[in-house]
Amino acid sequence: VERIFVVKKASYSGICEARAKLEGVVPMTPLLPLRLGAFTLWCKCESDQPMGAFKLRGAWHRMTALSDEEREGGVVAFSSGNHAQGVAWAAQRLGLRATIVMPSNAPDIKVEGTRALGAEVVFYDRMTENRDEIAASIAAERCAVLVPPFDDPYVIEGQGSAGIEALEQFAALGLAAPDLVVAPCGGGGLASGLSLAIPGARMAIVEPEGWDDVGISLERGEIVSVPADAPPTICDALQTLRASPRTFAILSERKPQAVSVDEAEVFAAMRLAHAELGKRIEPGGAVALAAIMAGKIEPGERTLVLLSGGNVDPALFERAMWG
Amino acid sequence: VERIFVVKKASYSGICEARAKLEGVVPMTPLLPLRLGAFTLWCKCESDQPMGAFKLRGAWHRMTALSDEEREGGVVAFSSGNHAQGVAWAAQRLGLRATIVMPSNAPDIKVEGTRALGAEVVFYDRMTENRDEIAASIAAERCAVLVPPFDDPYVIEGQGSAGIEALEQFAALGLAAPDLVVAPCGGGGLASGLSLAIPGARMAIVEPEGWDDVGISLERGEIVSVPADAPPTICDALQTLRASPRTFAILSERKPQAVSVDEAEVFAAMRLAHAELGKRIEPGGAVALAAIMAGKIEPGERTLVLLSGGNVDPALFERAMWG
Repeated sequence: VERIFVVKKASYSGICEARAKLEGVVPMTPLLPLRLGAFTLWCKCESDQPMGAFKLRGAWHRMTALSDEEREGGVVAFSSGNHAQGVAWAAQRLGLRATIVMPSNAPDIKVEGTRALGAEVVFYDRMTENRDEIAASIAAERCAVLVPPFDDPYVIEGQGSAGIEALEQFAALGLAAPDLVVAPCGGGGLASGLSLAIPGARMAIVEPEGWDDVGISLERGEIVSVPADAPPTICDALQTLRASPRTFAILSERKPQAVSVDEAEVFAAMRLAHAELGKRIEPGGAVALAAIMAGKIEPGERTLVLLSGGNVDPALFERAMWG
Repeated sequence: VERIFVVKKASYSGICEARAKLEGVVPMTPLLPLRLGAFTLWCKCESDQPMGAFKLRGAWHRMTALSDEEREGGVVAFSSGNHAQGVAWAAQRLGLRATIVMPSNAPDIKVEGTRALGAEVVFYDRMTENRDEIAASIAAERCAVLVPPFDDPYVIEGQGSAGIEALEQFAALGLAAPDLVVAPCGGGGLASGLSLAIPGARMAIVEPEGWDDVGISLERGEIVSVPADAPPTICDALQTLRASPRTFAILSERKPQAVSVDEAEVFAAMRLAHAELGKRIEPGGAVALAAIMAGKIEPGERTLVLLSGGNVDPALFERAMWG
């Protein structure tokens, strides 16, 4: 296969392009007010996306940019979670072949969810095999294009389109743009996309306790990985080992406040979102709200809070609701 | 002057036309959430209109429908309040001559406000002269078109455009359409426009205590006037003696719940709107909110509340805030 290198940097105009490409493909997700004491938080409910999270945004923007030759080979992605379903969803809508590389111990519900969207699932052994190598070898073998979960300019731009939608929604209400954006952070794809989409606002990112590698990286000025002995977390969507050079560069320039939240704080946010907004939010999707509720981030006049996904295991959801 | 009669009935499509004609002329007024106990009320802040109330909507829709011949003669209106300023505002923007007939004891602030918008003010003596006759004779003399405050299909449609805007705003948020619309009611122009604009929702109208002629009219099935010994009311914007055949016919078909509110209830609503939304609402503009706060109207899942105007005398505003 002959390849040429294309230089592309995630940008505001690319985010607007992603937003335009999603118009009519998926409806705008709701922006719902949530009253918290004296403050109104504006919650962008990405849990309402057809596959349950914001991830289809980046996948769609990346995959609609493929050349005809690239389309023939399809796409490959490694993920056991929302990214897998985002890529599978976009591939199905675009008529592309999608292969998803998952750990052999991935939960059945995620495997079946991905297969239900028409993707082929290939397993690897988390202990003995390297996920990146497997994905790369499949990509080479099938002439498929790898769609990374966050380390990609298209993916970052696509995730940022949630911010442009929110700006449109604020404007439609007759409100000025948000003065604070609070987003969950795993590898930093959503956070860096929003950083570029809404440059005028204060920015805060939230990670799960013990998985606050991005916060530490920003403090130290270099990418730091989650330690090998990191505690387990219920926030599977944010269980990323480290940021990427692309997302770290964007976030380093933006200098967001970075905080982390524990399980009890996440559960409290899931309960409030359910009681007040009627939404099922997954743990990783609720951390931004959790951090504000816990008083770790001071709300603004017009706070945009990303409720980034809703793919939560029913038993875990029950535990969050009833303890 | 040769005149032809044109048959026109206020309709949903006419309201959509009015909405389209206002696009780019005035910005959408804010739709702001107001938390009240377990409910979120969605407040349409018509107080943010350039002349401080929804009245420019009907005036604009009527006056943009004038023929070239009609435009030459200008317009005439009788009003001491928001309707006068709405007509004056629209006339100024459209380059038309406007004559406003006001009682000779009208407050200076309203006279000056109307003159500041370029209209000519003609006084009449409330005790010895008939307002309608004065306006009609001026209209005949100057070949001017009379713009009634509510008894006109264009005016009704124009006021209804606030409802179409609200529907657009609900949709932009990702919310279903409102299931309850609560509006202040004087002559019924706004209420009947909203009745036609949002036919799917439960509807409620609110009048000032002692000036609840529309509620009584709906109950009796015929237009009843406010009694001669009606008590004074702070809601000058709703101080209309009776509904018109046009507005009454629309409201009779719609069968809204009709309630009335007293001064203390209106003041409480003005205080809440100021504290929570940062808006100065005039007494007549606050009655819909007041009725819900007083428990006289059961909120819906998605309640649209019209805060219809903000032209309040500073001294009265202070009295509402501080007692």
